[in-house]
Amino acid sequence: MHPRDIETPALVVELDRLTANVERVATAARGRGLRLRPHVKTHKCIEIARLQMQSGAVGLTVATLSEAEVFARAGFDDLFVAYPIHPRGPGAERLRRLLDTVDLTVGVDTAAGAAAVAHAAGGRAARVVVEVDSGQHRTGVAPSETVGLAQACADLGLDVAGVFTHGGHAYGGPDAPAAAGHDEGAALAESADLLRGAGFDVRTVSAGSTPTTGVDRPPQVTEERPGTYVFGDRQQVALGACGSDDLAATVVATVVSVHADRFVVDAGSKVLAGDRPPWLAGAAAVTGLDDAPVTRVSEHHGVVDRGEASWGLPEVGSTVLLAPNHVCTVVNLFDELVVCRAGQVVDRWPVAARGRNA
Amino acid sequence: MHPRDIETPALVVELDRLTANVERVATAARGRGLRLRPHVKTHKCIEIARLQMQSGAVGLTVATLSEAEVFARAGFDDLFVAYPIHPRGPGAERLRRLLDTVDLTVGVDTAAGAAAVAHAAGGRAARVVVEVDSGQHRTGVAPSETVGLAQACADLGLDVAGVFTHGGHAYGGPDAPAAAGHDEGAALAESADLLRGAGFDVRTVSAGSTPTTGVDRPPQVTEERPGTYVFGDRQQVALGACGSDDLAATVVATVVSVHADRFVVDAGSKVLAGDRPPWLAGAAAVTGLDDAPVTRVSEHHGVVDRGEASWGLPEVGSTVLLAPNHVCTVVNLFDELVVCRAGQVVDRWPVAARGRNA
Repeated sequence: MHPRDIETPALVVELDRLTANVERVATAARGRGLRLRPHVKTHKCIEIARLQMQSGAVGLTVATLSEAEVFARAGFDDLFVAYPIHPRGPGAERLRRLLDTVDLTVGVDTAAGAAAVAHAAGGRAARVVVEVDSGQHRTGVAPSETVGLAQACADLGLDVAGVFTHGGHAYGGPDAPAAAGHDEGAALAESADLLRGAGFDVRTVSAGSTPTTGVDRPPQVTEERPGTYVFGDRQQVALGACGSDDLAATVVATVVSVHADRFVVDAGSKVLAGDRPPWLAGAAAVTGLDDAPVTRVSEHHGVVDRGEASWGLPEVGSTVLLAPNHVCTVVNLFDELVVCRAGQVVDRWPVAARGRNA
Repeated sequence: MHPRDIETPALVVELDRLTANVERVATAARGRGLRLRPHVKTHKCIEIARLQMQSGAVGLTVATLSEAEVFARAGFDDLFVAYPIHPRGPGAERLRRLLDTVDLTVGVDTAAGAAAVAHAAGGRAARVVVEVDSGQHRTGVAPSETVGLAQACADLGLDVAGVFTHGGHAYGGPDAPAAAGHDEGAALAESADLLRGAGFDVRTVSAGSTPTTGVDRPPQVTEERPGTYVFGDRQQVALGACGSDDLAATVVATVVSVHADRFVVDAGSKVLAGDRPPWLAGAAAVTGLDDAPVTRVSEHHGVVDRGEASWGLPEVGSTVLLAPNHVCTVVNLFDELVVCRAGQVVDRWPVAARGRNA
């Protein structure tokens, strides 16, 4: 089947681009002596995680316990929940089961969160890494506070393995990744040195985001956790993390309505998600039509207003390909990925961890 | 179980508010002599559609063929796809099956779309209504073009039942609904009169959106299609379509991280969706905390920056309730609704049509 004949809206993955992206980042990490622990929140897909492990990843990063459960059931046994979880009730029981079945590490950024993890672990020496704030000012402690939090974790009987950070301020705009990558390295180096000075056995010093993955790292850093690189998206192209020829995931949509000043496709906010950084025009771009932005969305409509553009209007019933702004939130809206190679549909892969937010 | 003890993030529905919303709009429509055909894209839930039918709805509105299939399987037999569908391939077969099993009406706004419907229908006199553009300038034809499109449909063997519109420009801001509601009525009255003058048997003249549902309608209008009113959301409160005491769907989240200037909850863009109208601050509001806006989101983090606010920071591990900006896209991110009454979880309802975009 040709991808243009599938029912729309659909999310199509170009297999050759996907495998090239997986290999490229794996090779780069190997060349720099860094372990690669890709974040699976981007693809939520067993088959893609297998490709990543086959290319040399040491394990997987997940965002939630329920994502961990999906990948644990599929046989992945080294999982890092890069999030300051706060398990209680059924969540505490789920954490215990994961600790009993896989090699699990979880993030901490407060003593109260660490206490919840220790309580849920029920005597197991759960492995934790301390989240360090490298400049996004979301979660994470200042490097100077790392030792205090690590000591609190140790006092609770937890195994402190090191530190991690996410330089999310890399998404501030096209000029942001270099500085954010530098910030990640500096915050990690400082906190790792402080931890070692305080006698902790630091095994993990983990940085992570696709736009900062190429930045030089200080020697203390041991690991990278990029996620979006498997597919790329408009954000990553604008941030310089990939080229438009690397984009491996595209929404296929049907033109359902055409007017003199616009056309409308059957992909709206329930397909394209809502990420609209101020440095990117529209909710997606129509590839093959001068990357015309989808100027407006409602739930099931994507409107491409023509403005002063010179492209010709497509025909009602034709299909168009849309490059998403942020592929992670788009994948989470689909139940399956339509896998294509050389213009043919060759497989369909479930988005196994779709909606696994808890 | 108390809703504060459930695993987070979760979407909690207050049953008493839901039933009051369903009844209020049904009673108002009855009082005005209008048929009510609620749009189920908001809730995607069989149980709530049953409440709507029990309170006097004449049928349901859906956005896609796959939504129609979900509700047809559950026994709902009068369905209107309020969208200019363009069925082909497997979609054409699905349309035929629906035409054979339920009382189906579909939208059209181009002759090419109508031809695709007629071709897919395979000789069945499929019932269509012409979409009229009442000012949103998304899909729909100008009232003056209604007769030409209706004639093209009739020439294709389709049964033209009337006209419909969606005054989506009601979402332009707090002052927009009154004018948009007037526009809906004017466009529908003009196009219905033109169709009748051309000899068409006009049975359906359908307006629809929650913010315009209370606006006076000209006598030609026969039907209303609001959707969001069952839950309400921050948008509807700001637009004057409901009060904050009517909000029936709330995201329960856990505070996972607290810092001097902010706290972070486990509900980000994969839970709160991406609707951020310029006339509403933040991605959601924390009820019970001066409606503090969720100022930043990433996929699994909602950050509430304190700014100059006077509220006290919540404790790590505590739960907060978040009022979503646009509940329709939030519901579509959950697999189930946690139904509560008098502070107790009384049921869990599947979001049966979640992700049914095709």
